[in-house]
Amino acid sequence: MDTVNATSVSAELVALATRAREASLVLQDTGHEVRVAALRAMARAIREQAGTILRENELDCETARKQGLGQSLYKRLALDGDKIEQMAIGLESVTGLPDPVGVLQEEIELDQGLILDKVSCPLGVIAIVFESRPDVVPQVIGLSVKSSNAVIFKGGSEALHSNRVLFQILEQAGIAAGLPDGFAGMVESRDDVKALLKLDDYIDLIIPRGSNALVRSIMDSTRIPVLGHADGICTMYVDKDADLQMAVRLVHDAKAQYPAVCNAIENLLVHRQVAGTVLPRILEDLRGASVEIRGDSTVCALLPDALPADEADWDTEYNDLILSVRVVESLDEATAFINAHGSGHSDAIVTGSDEAARRFVRRVDSSSVMVNASTRFADGYRYGKGAEIGISTNKTHARGPVGLEGLVIYKYILRGSGQCVADYTGAHARSYTHRRIL
Amino acid sequence: MDTVNATSVSAELVALATRAREASLVLQDTGHEVRVAALRAMARAIREQAGTILRENELDCETARKQGLGQSLYKRLALDGDKIEQMAIGLESVTGLPDPVGVLQEEIELDQGLILDKVSCPLGVIAIVFESRPDVVPQVIGLSVKSSNAVIFKGGSEALHSNRVLFQILEQAGIAAGLPDGFAGMVESRDDVKALLKLDDYIDLIIPRGSNALVRSIMDSTRIPVLGHADGICTMYVDKDADLQMAVRLVHDAKAQYPAVCNAIENLLVHRQVAGTVLPRILEDLRGASVEIRGDSTVCALLPDALPADEADWDTEYNDLILSVRVVESLDEATAFINAHGSGHSDAIVTGSDEAARRFVRRVDSSSVMVNASTRFADGYRYGKGAEIGISTNKTHARGPVGLEGLVIYKYILRGSGQCVADYTGAHARSYTHRRIL
Repeated sequence: MDTVNATSVSAELVALATRAREASLVLQDTGHEVRVAALRAMARAIREQAGTILRENELDCETARKQGLGQSLYKRLALDGDKIEQMAIGLESVTGLPDPVGVLQEEIELDQGLILDKVSCPLGVIAIVFESRPDVVPQVIGLSVKSSNAVIFKGGSEALHSNRVLFQILEQAGIAAGLPDGFAGMVESRDDVKALLKLDDYIDLIIPRGSNALVRSIMDSTRIPVLGHADGICTMYVDKDADLQMAVRLVHDAKAQYPAVCNAIENLLVHRQVAGTVLPRILEDLRGASVEIRGDSTVCALLPDALPADEADWDTEYNDLILSVRVVESLDEATAFINAHGSGHSDAIVTGSDEAARRFVRRVDSSSVMVNASTRFADGYRYGKGAEIGISTNKTHARGPVGLEGLVIYKYILRGSGQCVADYTGAHARSYTHRRIL
Repeated sequence: MDTVNATSVSAELVALATRAREASLVLQDTGHEVRVAALRAMARAIREQAGTILRENELDCETARKQGLGQSLYKRLALDGDKIEQMAIGLESVTGLPDPVGVLQEEIELDQGLILDKVSCPLGVIAIVFESRPDVVPQVIGLSVKSSNAVIFKGGSEALHSNRVLFQILEQAGIAAGLPDGFAGMVESRDDVKALLKLDDYIDLIIPRGSNALVRSIMDSTRIPVLGHADGICTMYVDKDADLQMAVRLVHDAKAQYPAVCNAIENLLVHRQVAGTVLPRILEDLRGASVEIRGDSTVCALLPDALPADEADWDTEYNDLILSVRVVESLDEATAFINAHGSGHSDAIVTGSDEAARRFVRRVDSSSVMVNASTRFADGYRYGKGAEIGISTNKTHARGPVGLEGLVIYKYILRGSGQCVADYTGAHARSYTHRRIL
């Protein structure tokens, strides 16, 4: 088993990364039918060994109870028969998605008989660093195998036994079904993570899933591209032409339906022309949901129970029932505020004006921009991706909720019959046709 | 003019980067017709002020002659009327390419009346660090404006006067034609480059164009995504089913037609079955082109005038008339060699076997893979992109010869009529339709 212990030396980690890289090269040439069969075998293995998984998970849960792990973390850690069945179903559902590898994206004739294809291919080796939730293991193995990538895991220590047994079961099932040795690897110590971050010759992408602090520390200490988001500072702007009723509902959904997540809003902006009518209604509604309001001076003047916001509030992700509220003079002030204080995740406008919506959509530089809809929709499942590996606020490669498309890149394949560049230069140069075929 | 001198403090650089970021937000909402008009105005301005450009360029050339700048660098530095006309034509030709911004890439109905669009948009602010060639200034301003990005330049000190005057002319013409102040900025000192690399809150992509050392030092010292390639270690593999004649021609083209460039080959692999017949012919041809051969023991035994290659030779980019040659036992040994020693740039197979070609293409993990064609075709112009900002060996975002597509990303735009996530959860949840429209 490709598990490296905390005490192991770094040569062992390099060996694991080397196996992953070698496996990734074999995976480049592993057919979709083999990958699908492996995913089905993994789903079967998880069902068959549900008892073992639950036993190992109980070891983690016991430790968690002793150490007084927080309620919400404990809930994410603890498995039951239903959650295990969900893991199996998740693996099976990935099999139904179209093969993301080998897709012809463009085809161009450079000259007669000289054809250039742009074809999707896997990235290579992906490393994923996550906290607490053991269901990440089958989910990420599923996406990696589907996209022909090798993967290296580092899970949270709270879930060590659960992650380890899941990893073992999935690895064995995968290799038995024809995947190359090393297609998945696991490391267990924090030191290994630090070392992983240095292995830019072996690892093509790092996906951190967990707290903002985890994500930021990884982004700060590696040359490997990182796919993810540190902050989720989302804003909703209620325009002067907003439907009052709709604004109340959308603000409620975006703030209070599930405040702990990255696509919930932290800031609310309201156009001055409607502040007097809209704000009291919104805030009455939010008071019912126990949301604390931190407002600018106009907001505080309108609402006696609002607390004054300080400068830091506009840049804070509360992940809690707290909302910063500010009155703006114009749509442009709103978009400037969002571009300055937001994290480029998901931002919304509530407006009845098509022109205002268009301007907002063009001007807000975020991965998801909503018009008359909740920011909470920014999610791989809701966006219809079938599976999500994370939400990215990067400006390169993959942005927003990312599915399998974030795990592939492309290569150019040029097919000829002996063509030389020299034939296309100088006095009797042939010319390129550059005819787009696809 | 947004030029920061070597002596300026870093506050000035932050101010320049801030102007660039603000301009980039305006550019997000600047129509294609404005951008095209600006490019046309720039082409006109270059033609009108050709005399001024040549005068300033002569100052650089004079210094270069005094300092004994190498012949090839001097040739790239020196401008004439024809090169200036080419700059103007280059700017005009970009106007004819399709607008890369605002392209609807996907459209999906999440539910009736809740429509998700994936639309291309600019990256934001691009920084380009280059050496010696002043024609990079109009070329990169052209691509940036076309793709609605702001751009910050740092050119080589050898071309300071030329770059500065070109930048001034283009900036003025662009602003007069309606582009926002700050759409292009220029820094002039090495210290400014170091500082730029730290401005990851302002700059979305860095494109280094120049020596391997320049590219590597930039990649090593920034968190900003870097698009480019440090090495160009390309390999050609002559398979056992290769056409002898074709192999000779392709090796000649890939090595000797222009050895100083990144897509020329450094390594040649030959299948053992044909080594005895193919190698003498290839090497006879290369001798005629004064190519020095460094071979493994088999090669040296076959060819008395080959020098023995040492381990470092297989990983060396000569950029010169030197070729490392090795005999391999199989196609798989060839692909393993390329994946281990190549730089993921461009690699070729010469073979008459479709099956061998397919296997090679699948197994070689490089941005361009050639079958019976020269590696020298890996180039934005030859690939029909109209314009190239560089060749990338990155595995994320953009790979291979990169045109305008590398300067855009996408955003998701969700349009609804008040939909809340709460409507889609719980007992009476609505379900998603997830109907693909585009």
